[in-house]
Amino acid sequence: MQLGMIGLGRMGANIVRRLMLDGHECVVFDTNADAVASLVAEGATGAASLEELAAKLQTPRATWVMVPASITGRVVDELAAVFEPGDVIIDGGNSNYRDDVRRAAKLSESGIDYIDAGTSGGVFGLERGYCLMIGGPDAAVRRLEPIFRTIAPGLGEIARTPGRSGDPAPEEQGYLHCGPSGAGHFVKMVHNGIEYGIMAALAEGLNILQNADAGTREAEHSAEIAPMEEPEFYKFTIDTPKVAELWRRGSVISSWLLDLTAAALEENHDLHGLAGRVSDSGEGRWTVKAAVDVGVPAPVLASALFERFASRDEDQYANQLLSAMRLQFGGHKELPTGDVLEAGGRKADAQG
Amino acid sequence: MQLGMIGLGRMGANIVRRLMLDGHECVVFDTNADAVASLVAEGATGAASLEELAAKLQTPRATWVMVPASITGRVVDELAAVFEPGDVIIDGGNSNYRDDVRRAAKLSESGIDYIDAGTSGGVFGLERGYCLMIGGPDAAVRRLEPIFRTIAPGLGEIARTPGRSGDPAPEEQGYLHCGPSGAGHFVKMVHNGIEYGIMAALAEGLNILQNADAGTREAEHSAEIAPMEEPEFYKFTIDTPKVAELWRRGSVISSWLLDLTAAALEENHDLHGLAGRVSDSGEGRWTVKAAVDVGVPAPVLASALFERFASRDEDQYANQLLSAMRLQFGGHKELPTGDVLEAGGRKADAQG
Amino acid sequence: MQLGMIGLGRMGANIVRRLMLDGHECVVFDTNADAVASLVAEGATGAASLEELAAKLQTPRATWVMVPASITGRVVDELAAVFEPGDVIIDGGNSNYRDDVRRAAKLSESGIDYIDAGTSGGVFGLERGYCLMIGGPDAAVRRLEPIFRTIAPGLGEIARTPGRSGDPAPEEQGYLHCGPSGAGHFVKMVHNGIEYGIMAALAEGLNILQNADAGTREAEHSAEIAPMEEPEFYKFTIDTPKVAELWRRGSVISSWLLDLTAAALEENHDLHGLAGRVSDSGEGRWTVKAAVDVGVPAPVLASALFERFASRDEDQYANQLLSAMRLQFGGHKELPTGDVLEAGGRKADAQG
Amino acid sequence: MQLGMIGLGRMGANIVRRLMLDGHECVVFDTNADAVASLVAEGATGAASLEELAAKLQTPRATWVMVPASITGRVVDELAAVFEPGDVIIDGGNSNYRDDVRRAAKLSESGIDYIDAGTSGGVFGLERGYCLMIGGPDAAVRRLEPIFRTIAPGLGEIARTPGRSGDPAPEEQGYLHCGPSGAGHFVKMVHNGIEYGIMAALAEGLNILQNADAGTREAEHSAEIAPMEEPEFYKFTIDTPKVAELWRRGSVISSWLLDLTAAALEENHDLHGLAGRVSDSGEGRWTVKAAVDVGVPAPVLASALFERFASRDEDQYANQLLSAMRLQFGGHKELPTGDVLEAGGRKADAQG
Repeated sequence: MQLGMIGLGRMGANIVRRLMLDGHECVVFDTNADAVASLVAEGATGAASLEELAAKLQTPRATWVMVPASITGRVVDELAAVFEPGDVIIDGGNSNYRDDVRRAAKLSESGIDYIDAGTSGGVFGLERGYCLMIGGPDAAVRRLEPIFRTIAPGLGEIARTPGRSGDPAPEEQGYLHCGPSGAGHFVKMVHNGIEYGIMAALAEGLNILQNADAGTREAEHSAEIAPMEEPEFYKFTIDTPKVAELWRRGSVISSWLLDLTAAALEENHDLHGLAGRVSDSGEGRWTVKAAVDVGVPAPVLASALFERFASRDEDQYANQLLSAMRLQFGGHKELPTGDVLEAGGRKADAQG
Repeated sequence: MQLGMIGLGRMGANIVRRLMLDGHECVVFDTNADAVASLVAEGATGAASLEELAAKLQTPRATWVMVPASITGRVVDELAAVFEPGDVIIDGGNSNYRDDVRRAAKLSESGIDYIDAGTSGGVFGLERGYCLMIGGPDAAVRRLEPIFRTIAPGLGEIARTPGRSGDPAPEEQGYLHCGPSGAGHFVKMVHNGIEYGIMAALAEGLNILQNADAGTREAEHSAEIAPMEEPEFYKFTIDTPKVAELWRRGSVISSWLLDLTAAALEENHDLHGLAGRVSDSGEGRWTVKAAVDVGVPAPVLASALFERFASRDEDQYANQLLSAMRLQFGGHKELPTGDVLEAGGRKADAQG
Repeated sequence: MQLGMIGLGRMGANIVRRLMLDGHECVVFDTNADAVASLVAEGATGAASLEELAAKLQTPRATWVMVPASITGRVVDELAAVFEPGDVIIDGGNSNYRDDVRRAAKLSESGIDYIDAGTSGGVFGLERGYCLMIGGPDAAVRRLEPIFRTIAPGLGEIARTPGRSGDPAPEEQGYLHCGPSGAGHFVKMVHNGIEYGIMAALAEGLNILQNADAGTREAEHSAEIAPMEEPEFYKFTIDTPKVAELWRRGSVISSWLLDLTAAALEENHDLHGLAGRVSDSGEGRWTVKAAVDVGVPAPVLASALFERFASRDEDQYANQLLSAMRLQFGGHKELPTGDVLEAGGRKADAQG
Repeated sequence: MQLGMIGLGRMGANIVRRLMLDGHECVVFDTNADAVASLVAEGATGAASLEELAAKLQTPRATWVMVPASITGRVVDELAAVFEPGDVIIDGGNSNYRDDVRRAAKLSESGIDYIDAGTSGGVFGLERGYCLMIGGPDAAVRRLEPIFRTIAPGLGEIARTPGRSGDPAPEEQGYLHCGPSGAGHFVKMVHNGIEYGIMAALAEGLNILQNADAGTREAEHSAEIAPMEEPEFYKFTIDTPKVAELWRRGSVISSWLLDLTAAALEENHDLHGLAGRVSDSGEGRWTVKAAVDVGVPAPVLASALFERFASRDEDQYANQLLSAMRLQFGGHKELPTGDVLEAGGRKADAQG
C-alpha cells in the first residue's frame, strides 16, 4: 500500500527502503532536499512540502513521522493542517506517551487518527526489521497492518515459543497493537527502561571481572579506602573482551546487548577514548516515574538510571556533603578528602 | 578422548551424551545405579565405585564431577584418594570459587590437577551446548581442550562478532580458559550475578506494564497509599504475554531470558500457581560480596538480589519497624497499618 | 497578630493553641462544629462559615488552611471567593508544590497572596513547635513573620551551630522563607524524602541485627535459599529494643527517628499486631520524581520508597515472573516455587 | 577502678581523661612517648612498654586497646604474652567482629578474657561520652561495668523514652552488653552501616535541593542529557546551608548527622576545596556482606556504600562499557560520548 514518510534520517530512510523492497509505495519529505533526492533515486516519490506530500497521497492518507521528539509536536500539527478526516498520522519517534494521549485527543476533533508506533531496532533495522509497539484506534491500526508487517522483522530464524503454532500471531512477527493511543509508546518506554537495566547488569558484572585483580594492587590506595579483606581471592586477571564473546553462546545471559558489548570490546579492547559519561534519552526516566506513579518497585531500573546520572558527576554536591560530614565527625578539618582515617597514624581517631 | 563422569543428574548425563555423540568415551558413576545403567545402555562404560571408575580410566586420568555443591568437596576428596599424580579432576558444579582455590592448592600437593569449569546451559544444553568458564593449570586445561570443545556450543548459527575472522577462537566456540584455579567459577559467579540483574530488569518492567491500568482502579486502595496523580495516563490494559513475545524479534532487549519469559507466559498466561517466593542459589550473593570486596558499585545486581530476599518476606521485621515508627509520629497508636494518614479524616494530622 | 485557621484536626488545633499561648488571636472554622466549639472554649473566635470567618478577620486578612491535601484546592478556591485583594492564604498541609505554583499564579490574578508553609512536627508540635518551610511573595511572608516565629520551635535547648552567634536567624528558630510560591512545599517534600531514607536505614540495620542469629536456624529453610556460608559468625541473639535505646546517647546516629524507634520498641517489644504493610503519603514519591527530573542520583531515597511498595506486595507480579523464568531454565515445571534447585537431589540440574 | 590504655590517639587519650575525671586510675602506653608524657602530666601513670604496663596494673588486670584496626591483632597478641589468666583485654577499636570471635577463642585458651567494645562518639566524646556496644563473657563485662558507665554518656539531657522509669538501665546510660565476643563490634558495624545510610539520605536530599534550579539552566547541557520536562517547576534557588540549619529544630529528620551537616555548611557554604571522593572505613562493607549472608534486604545501606565507591570513580569501567554499547546500537562510532543522540540532527536515529 501507500505510505508517506516525513523525516529521512537513518531510521526514516531505512524504513522507506524496507517498505519499497516489499512492494509498498512511499511518498517522502525532509527539510534536507538531498535526503529526499537520494530516496527518489531509489524509487520513492519525493515531495518538497507537506502540502505536496498530502497531494501525492491517496485518501485516506497515512503518513509516518520520524523526526526528533523535540519537533514531533510541531510536525504533527503542520501535517494535520493539510490532512483531512479519515487520514492517519503515525508517530514513529521516541515521544513521551503522554504527548500521544494529548495529541490523539486533539486530532480526533478533526477526524484524523493518530497512531503511536514505538520503534526499536536502531541502525540494524533495515536488515533485521524493526520491533513495533503500536497504540491507536482499532480501525486505523488494522488498515495499516500491511505496513507494520513489512517494517517488522517477521518470524525470521528465531525459534517459535513452545506452545505456539499455526499462523504466526502479529507479536510473533514483531509488531503488536498494544492498546489505545499512547499504549505503543508506553510499551516502548518500558522496553527502554528494561534496556537500561540489562545494560547496567552487564556493565556492573564486567566491572567486577575487570577488578578481579584488586588483591594484587591493594597497596596503591590503602589511604583512600578500607584495606581489602582476603586479597588472596582477588588475584585474577580476566580478559573481559573474551568473556563477553564467550557468553554469547550457550549461556543464560546471551542477548543482543551482550552481542553489542562483545562487538564494542572487540573493536576497542581497552575502551580507550571513552570518557564514561553516559547519556540518557528520556525513556529510562519516564519508566522510573511511571513505576513511582503506579506504585510498583523498580529498584533495578532506577539504579541503572541513577548510575548514568552519577557517571556525569550529577552526584558531585552529594559527595562533597559526605566528605564534609566526615570531616566534621572525624575532626580533621584541614584535610580535603578521605585521608581522614589515617591522619596522624591513628585510624581509631576518626571512627564513627 | 576419554573422560570419567561422576554425577548423572540431568546435566551430568546430558554432558555424557553430548560427548559420546562426538566420539568421546565416557566412564560413568553415580550412587543411583539406575542412572548408570541408563547411560551404559546408551554406550557409556559403567562403574560401581570410584575405585572401579579410576581403574577403567587410562592414565593420566580425567574426571568431571557434576554433583550438588554441598557434596562436591567430599566427592573430590574421595576421588583424589584413588587418583594418581598427573590425573585431573574437573568440578563442573556451582562451587564457590574460593573453594576451588583451596582445593587446587591442596590437590597440587598430591600432584593432581584441579580444574573448575563453570557450566551454563541448563536443561537445554544437550542440544544447545554448554557455555564453559574454565580455571586451572595451563597444561591440564590444554590437554582437555577436545572435551571442552565438544561440550561447548561451537559457533553454531550465531553470527560472528564484527572484526573476528579466521579460525574461531575458543571463546567463540563457547569455552574459555579464564585463568588459574578459581577463575572459571569466578566468571561463572559473575555471569549468574548478571543473570539476576537481567531477570529483575525484565520482571520490573513487565510489572510496570501489568499495572499500566492503575489509574482505573485507584479507588480501591485509596486508604492505603497516596492518591495517584494524573490517573488518566494509567488506563492501559497491556497484554504482557504478547509483549514478551513481541520483544523477541528486532528489539534491543531480545535475549534468551526474554525467550524464557515469553515461554513461561505462553504456558501460563496469568502465572497462576506461582507464589512469587524467589530462591537464590548462591552466585548472586557471592557476586555482591565480591563487588563489595573489590570496591566497585553494583547497585543493580544488589537490588536484584535484595528483591529476591524481599519476595520471601525477609524484609518483614524492617517493615514492621517502619509501621511502628509511623505510628509513633502519626500519633495514631491504635491503628495497626497504613490507615494512619486518613484516621479521623484528617490527613494533615499525620504529616511528617 | 490575628490569624484565621481552617481545619481543626490535631495539627490545626494545636497550631491555634500554640498561637493563642503566645498572645495571637485566632478565628477558627471547621465543618465539624464540635471542633470549633472546643477551641472557642479555649479562647478562639469561632466561625460557622468561610463568610463569617472572612467577616471576623481584619483586613488585610491572613488565614491558614490545614486540611487534607485532597481537598485543599477546593477550600482555597472557596476562601478566595470571600477574600479581597491584599489578603493572604497560607496552605500548611501536605500539598504537592506544583499545586502551589499553579494556585499562586491563579490567586495573584485576584490580588490575593498565596503562601505555602510545609509544616513538620506531627503530634509533638504543640509542645515542641513546628518546623516551617515557607514559600511565597516576600512582602506577605515578611508581614506574617510574627505568626511563623510563634509556630516554630525557636532556638530551644538545641545548641547553636558553631560559627553562629548574635541574634538567631529565622532558620535557627525553625522557620525559613525558602523562595517563591512552591519553594516551601518543595523543601518539605525533600525533607520527607530524606525521612523515608533515614527510616529505611534504621529499619534495614535493625533487621540485620534481628537476624544476627541466622546461623543457628539455618536448617529450617535450606530448601528455600542458598545454604549460609560460615554460620558460626551468625549466632548472636541481639536485643534490638535495647540497642535502639542504646544508640540514643552518644552515637553518631542519634536522631529523632531513632528516639521514635526506641519508643516504639519499648512500647511493643516484638512489634506484635503490626503487619508491616507500610504506607507512603506522596512526598517520598514526588521526591524521587524530582530527582529524576533534575537528573541527580537518589538511589537511597528511591530504594526506601520501593521497599514500602514491596511491603504492600506491589512486587508480586515481578516475583511470579522470576519464579516462572527459573522454572523454565531449571526445567522443573511441576514445582511452583524455589524448591527447584533441590528437586531430585541434584542441585547441578538447575544451574544457570 | 584501674584500667590500662594502649594507644593514646585522640580517642584513647580522651577516654583516659574521661575516666580520670570520674576518679578512675589509668596506666597508659603508646609508642609515642610524648603522648604518654602528656597524659602523665594530667595524672595518668605512664608505662614505657607493655611489660611495664602489665607490672603497674593490679591483677586481675584490665586494659583497653585503642589502636588502628590494622595493628590491633598484633598488639593484642603482645599484650596477651605479658598477661595472666583472669586478665581482660578490651578492644575498643574498629575491628571486624569476626576477628573478635577468633581472638576470643584463642585467648580463652590462655585464660584471658577478651571484650570487644564498639565505641562511637568521635572527637566529641570527651565531653559528650562514648556510646559503647560491648561483647564478651558475662563475668568480665560485669566486673568492668564501672569503667563502661564512666566512658558512656549517661542519661544526660536526653529525655527518657516513654515507658521507662526507675533506675536507668545500662542502655539508657549509653552502654550495653550485647552478647558474647563479637556481638559488640557486630552491633557497632551495623551502627556504622546505618550511619552511611543516613548520611546518604541527607546528601541525596540536599543535592536535589541544590539542583532545584535545574529548569533555569536547561540549555547548557541539552546535548548531553534528555531535555527536562516541565522546567517551569524547577526554578527555585534554595539556600541549602540555611535549610540544613532549619531542619535541626522541630523537624522529623533532626539528628546529630544533620547537626554536623549544618555545621559543615556554616563553615564552608559552598563546600569549596572538597573533591567529593568519599572514603569508607570497612563497617559499611561488612554490614552489606552481613545482610547478604543472613539474607535480609538492605538496598538503602548498599546503595549508600556503592555511592561512595562511585564517588571515587570505581564505576569508570562500567560507564565506559555503557557508552561503548550505546555507540554500537546508535551506530555513531566516531563519537566518544553522549552526543550520539543528536548527531546529524536526528535524534530518532539512535533510538533503542
